[in-house]
Amino acid sequence: MADLRQHAASLTVALGTGPDIRDITDELNGVIRESGIREGTLAACVVGSTGSLTTIEYEPGVVADLKAAIERLAPPDAYYAHEEAWHDGNGHSHVQAALLGPSIHLAVRDGRLRLGTWQQVVVINHDNRARQRPIEVTVTGVGG
Amino acid sequence: MADLRQHAASLTVALGTGPDIRDITDELNGVIRESGIREGTLAACVVGSTGSLTTIEYEPGVVADLKAAIERLAPPDAYYAHEEAWHDGNGHSHVQAALLGPSIHLAVRDGRLRLGTWQQVVVINHDNRARQRPIEVTVTGVGG
Amino acid sequence: MADLRQHAASLTVALGTGPDIRDITDELNGVIRESGIREGTLAACVVGSTGSLTTIEYEPGVVADLKAAIERLAPPDAYYAHEEAWHDGNGHSHVQAALLGPSIHLAVRDGRLRLGTWQQVVVINHDNRARQRPIEVTVTGVGG
Repeated sequence: MADLRQHAASLTVALGTGPDIRDITDELNGVIRESGIREGTLAACVVGSTGSLTTIEYEPGVVADLKAAIERLAPPDAYYAHEEAWHDGNGHSHVQAALLGPSIHLAVRDGRLRLGTWQQVVVINHDNRARQRPIEVTVTGVGG
Repeated sequence: MADLRQHAASLTVALGTGPDIRDITDELNGVIRESGIREGTLAACVVGSTGSLTTIEYEPGVVADLKAAIERLAPPDAYYAHEEAWHDGNGHSHVQAALLGPSIHLAVRDGRLRLGTWQQVVVINHDNRARQRPIEVTVTGVGG
Repeated sequence: MADLRQHAASLTVALGTGPDIRDITDELNGVIRESGIREGTLAACVVGSTGSLTTIEYEPGVVADLKAAIERLAPPDAYYAHEEAWHDGNGHSHVQAALLGPSIHLAVRDGRLRLGTWQQVVVINHDNRARQRPIEVTVTGVGG
């Protein structure tokens, strides 16, 4: 078997006021291509406590439905203790991001992410202002 | 130290109309056995945007309670924008799966998953019809 | 490139009655230091079906807000089928933990976790009694 190796990369994604959702599947497949890895895993994590990663069918309906569900989990207009000290209006953002989680770990097969036909990887900005979101990507596997 | 290596496998799990929940711990331990890896990690991800993975105490009560909680997160009978274009009745399935997340990453110790005594790995089908769910598994570690 | 290697460790964290939330960032960075790995990934998973892992800004306000949101996801005083057979009063704990998820996978860069300035890794005990929570940590990468 070929030796196991690893490739690290950083992406930065511009996102609007939260909840904003962006498809990053192409960018992640680009990192895999750069790496030359054919089979293994891709780990991605969002840097910052008001972002999250998951997969969805990236079409406008699901995007709108997921935003609505996220706002139900932690409504912007509810009371947040975070505001007592910080007054930055993003108490809901912190809670939403913590519940969804900052990391995802997917399979690489045949040199690309092994996803369903209608499944894309998305980054979510939960913050109450537009943000540049750094995402750290690590591909581990064999191939080349 | 022995060289780090990797073993990839695919499972397919038959699941009923969502939310349906199945214990896949034995299948995952089988993949680890095949790999000969004694210490490392197991990454699993469900292929498709209406499935998810997590761990629970797999007993009928918790299974029923988790199904009820999932249905509260995104009730089947609510309005979903996804239906406007797709009319396939599974708007809630997409939202539920995105909130739970498609991937899990567990420790392999002594040649098997290191879980609690009452902790099992489960795959969840959120779709509004029975599905064959592919799950990609990658074991990375040392041993043998 | 230096050879890829792996380092495994176990932490045990004392937590109070759930939901209780503890910052484990320093402990995880300690495991990375021990490993000598400079670039790669850290996978952590909580052993037991009533614990979870995520990241937050670890300040008292967000901690209180996240606890409140977790209790809304599965309120302690609701009906749980788990109680019919087990009578241990922790049906809500199982549901909360399953929704948040037991595992996290973060980037290691320059010999430490690559997190935002206001982002810490936390373990959550959802159980209705104080628990010693084992956490399995695996660092994979290069360096030294």
